[in-house]
Amino acid sequence: MPAEFEPHAGCWMLWPQKPETWRLGAKPAQKAFIKVAQAISKYEPVTVGVNEDQYANAVRMLPEEVRVVELASNDAWMRDTGATFVKNDETGEVRGVDWRFNAWGGLVDGLYFPWDLDEQVARKMCDMERLDRYVLEDFVLEGGSIHTDGDGTLITTEECLLSDGRNHNLSKEEIGEVLCSYLGADKVIWLKNGLYLDETNGHIDNMCCFVEPGKVLLAWTDNEKDPQYQICKENLEILENETDAKGRKLEIVKLPLPSPLTLTEEEAAGLDAPDEASERHEGERLPASYINFYISNGALIVPRFGDEKDAEAAEILQACFPDRTVTTIDSREILLGGGNIHCITQQQPLAGPRSEIEAAMAEKAAKEEAAKEQEKTSEEGEAHE
Amino acid sequence: MPAEFEPHAGCWMLWPQKPETWRLGAKPAQKAFIKVAQAISKYEPVTVGVNEDQYANAVRMLPEEVRVVELASNDAWMRDTGATFVKNDETGEVRGVDWRFNAWGGLVDGLYFPWDLDEQVARKMCDMERLDRYVLEDFVLEGGSIHTDGDGTLITTEECLLSDGRNHNLSKEEIGEVLCSYLGADKVIWLKNGLYLDETNGHIDNMCCFVEPGKVLLAWTDNEKDPQYQICKENLEILENETDAKGRKLEIVKLPLPSPLTLTEEEAAGLDAPDEASERHEGERLPASYINFYISNGALIVPRFGDEKDAEAAEILQACFPDRTVTTIDSREILLGGGNIHCITQQQPLAGPRSEIEAAMAEKAAKEEAAKEQEKTSEEGEAHE
Repeated sequence: MPAEFEPHAGCWMLWPQKPETWRLGAKPAQKAFIKVAQAISKYEPVTVGVNEDQYANAVRMLPEEVRVVELASNDAWMRDTGATFVKNDETGEVRGVDWRFNAWGGLVDGLYFPWDLDEQVARKMCDMERLDRYVLEDFVLEGGSIHTDGDGTLITTEECLLSDGRNHNLSKEEIGEVLCSYLGADKVIWLKNGLYLDETNGHIDNMCCFVEPGKVLLAWTDNEKDPQYQICKENLEILENETDAKGRKLEIVKLPLPSPLTLTEEEAAGLDAPDEASERHEGERLPASYINFYISNGALIVPRFGDEKDAEAAEILQACFPDRTVTTIDSREILLGGGNIHCITQQQPLAGPRSEIEAAMAEKAAKEEAAKEQEKTSEEGEAHE
Repeated sequence: MPAEFEPHAGCWMLWPQKPETWRLGAKPAQKAFIKVAQAISKYEPVTVGVNEDQYANAVRMLPEEVRVVELASNDAWMRDTGATFVKNDETGEVRGVDWRFNAWGGLVDGLYFPWDLDEQVARKMCDMERLDRYVLEDFVLEGGSIHTDGDGTLITTEECLLSDGRNHNLSKEEIGEVLCSYLGADKVIWLKNGLYLDETNGHIDNMCCFVEPGKVLLAWTDNEKDPQYQICKENLEILENETDAKGRKLEIVKLPLPSPLTLTEEEAAGLDAPDEASERHEGERLPASYINFYISNGALIVPRFGDEKDAEAAEILQACFPDRTVTTIDSREILLGGGNIHCITQQQPLAGPRSEIEAAMAEKAAKEEAAKEQEKTSEEGEAHE
């Protein structure tokens, strides 16, 4: 599995509409999704899958450069329902991995029922793109519960992958073996818990991600009174004492969390709640984290919460990814649904042998460098005259 | 617009399910569609579009080599609802033409309401394939109402294109101009009527088609008592007195029609009929014609009716297309829906400049010829020994 920071062929998203997840008929969320799609499509092709009953509307609302395809889903979390893409570095062939999906815990503690349409998403993506697909009939996984450095190391959380609602019949070791075998990795780094009150059972993609092999970003708070503090601290200790698949110690960059954000009365009132379990209330804490950004070709698409930490987080991310443009997007409406920008996107790696892609990128970089040099020289020449 | 006998990238179909069109929950029709998809997929890639509620079923029933995509429709007539593909011979780029569709006559004499999903089919096909598209906001046309020789000539029927339910505000000349302009043609040959009692207002694809530039097949009956006879005779006279866009006289091959076929009581009883207009009755004549075949790369997929003319029709078609394999398929279940194999298929031309494709095909043919020669020589050599 290539890392998210490796070259993409494009990005997949789904269109939000579920009235129990997205307030006011999903209209505010749709606007936020459109901003994300628009921002990413400046850097790589974006495809948005949509249920037939929202097709005409989505086509009209989305910008023309975004490809809209009919692709039914129960909810709009492409990261978790979509295919995970893997690539053969030598032949350059890209294939999909089609895990089982059970709405984050199935009948144990899943978030909705049914999830039949979500289960078909990965297959439909692969078929549409004419990509072969690995099917796991008996293994539940969401894309948001794993990250890879593209160099043999995976990272995940015990809270999620060892949860009762997923693969309770498998041991931690067995789960690690499945991951390594299907994703072409050698080692899994296991953090303990994900974000406090994250309904996904603590997905890694709200807590920690790779910047490059050997370097990770960790969601962090210095507020010792926040229950979040102990979670972060425990994960920090694990990371400090771990090595990756290649035996490297990890460089850890702390990315501040925003101040605790909560649901407003107005926001809660905009949601359908057909039963007590799905009722949501004013004051509920939201799982907000800047870690939940998307890496596109040449850019980072980063959540913005209107919080005092917004600027600091963006600066840290820019320093971690100096060659990419950081774009921040007000993503509160996505957060209200329970996730953020990373949860609603899924990268498809660029096909082609790694050596060829790296050679092409090196050539491009050299050309840009040469052009800069020339510009500089001619400017100096002018200055001398 | 390339002719159907030019090289294809593949073939598009839709999955039948409408209970007013297809008896017994469309199960017998689905089996017939599967046979068509299977036969074509031996020669070119086939994609079948399906409504979400039949997706899982279609995926299981169709053979693995057929690509199944979610693509909603009101009924399964891909020829008429799908994109018409055109190609720039120099650049080799393929684009779609997206006509308006109104279920064969809209509120005047259309066959069902609504047709909103059908209207989106062409767009979705083009978007899925990342092909640009010409959109005609005010011009109704079904793909089954035109044929082209790929060399500047179109053929159609007045009964259909001048019908009140389509472009009643346009004159025959204006309609011809739209066709020529969007399909890159210079001349339209206008036959009078299509098949007797054909609900499509006489689509050309049940009556007449091109074998090659300058040569057509015409549906024919010698039975002067059949109302069909006068229709055929009138069309024959038109064709005998016409020239094509390049000034050629037309060679006309008569393709016999099967004996009149009618709906059985059992067949009529298997259909939903929510109102009087949609009721169908025992003894109704069916619009059966061998002309309604599909030309795939290297093959013809031809309707078979269990009629005494089946063999003769197949022989004539084989003689017209000596380099293609003729496959006949029992298509009565498709006929019961009102059309046949050509109506449920739509070719997508192979992209690439015409000169390159022709050169590649010539090379392939030369190689095959050389291989045959060599085989022959070595056999002769063995015979001499």
